[in-house]
Amino acid sequence: MRVLIDMDGVLADFEGRFLEIWRETYPKRPFIPLEERTTFYLSHQYPRQYTADIIDILSAPNFFSSLPPIDNAIHALSQLEQLDIDLFICTSPFHYYEHCVVEKYQWIDRYLGSHWIPRMILTGDKTVVDADFLVDDKGDITGVATPSWEQIIYDFPANRTVQSKKRMTWGNWEEVLLPLIA
Amino acid sequence: MRVLIDMDGVLADFEGRFLEIWRETYPKRPFIPLEERTTFYLSHQYPRQYTADIIDILSAPNFFSSLPPIDNAIHALSQLEQLDIDLFICTSPFHYYEHCVVEKYQWIDRYLGSHWIPRMILTGDKTVVDADFLVDDKGDITGVATPSWEQIIYDFPANRTVQSKKRMTWGNWEEVLLPLIA
Repeated sequence: MRVLIDMDGVLADFEGRFLEIWRETYPKRPFIPLEERTTFYLSHQYPRQYTADIIDILSAPNFFSSLPPIDNAIHALSQLEQLDIDLFICTSPFHYYEHCVVEKYQWIDRYLGSHWIPRMILTGDKTVVDADFLVDDKGDITGVATPSWEQIIYDFPANRTVQSKKRMTWGNWEEVLLPLIA
Repeated sequence: MRVLIDMDGVLADFEGRFLEIWRETYPKRPFIPLEERTTFYLSHQYPRQYTADIIDILSAPNFFSSLPPIDNAIHALSQLEQLDIDLFICTSPFHYYEHCVVEKYQWIDRYLGSHWIPRMILTGDKTVVDADFLVDDKGDITGVATPSWEQIIYDFPANRTVQSKKRMTWGNWEEVLLPLIA
């Protein structure tokens, strides 16, 4: 049994932190509350004239390292580690990789511990990673291959239009994910 | 058809650059000529008292970004790109990841171009990446899974004791690799 865990939006609160910085940096501009987010990419829902400013926030030093853990994620992973399964962190880095990639390693090191570093997979295409399950908040994960894994959607407003997939948070993973893998 | 290409020792001349820095930094110490290398890890063949100095070289800023391309590697990859196959760079970062991971992205960006960035896979375990072939200089690649890929050994003195695998360099890949994938 092998389970892949996505990072942004599943372990690390990418959307919450972005919104916090956006509102601090541009207090007079409109913002989209998390409950009203409808797209996976921020730039697809924010007005087009803000795209460069969004990229500036996401590509700045310390953006990825400053993401707070999602509620209960760290505790849940420590419980998953007790099971007799193979766990990997499977994450697609931001296109502007200068700070993102090392900060993803630093984040895992800091919050989960250095023994997770060899369990990290950074890939632009998750469909070529072989596993039983992938926990991920992205609604449409595509790539060159037909994935071997079944996706468990990590719930977020933007992915609630996605049907027919199992859906969980770290609040109810013991009811959704655990019976599938234990 | 999907082919994974390792980075250190296959695209980037890790061993050659290490030896160059070692001899410049410690001109009075013994060194191991490339033709006499017998182990995958440097620290397994250099005397034990030098391990920390080896790690210092490999973990210093600009070590990974300064690796020269291996002879004919860049040209060969541009030829492989013309084929109707899916190519990925599949590399395991150095344990001391601080400079290594971003410099691997920078290296690929610089020598192969930014369109390769989404084709990069950084993983501590290559056995979970699904492909037909992996070109790699490491003799014994293990992990949690039975790999789907067949390894093509990238020839280096340290891996010449490995039997029963196909063996190539970018000097003869058209005779060894090409007939398998085209």
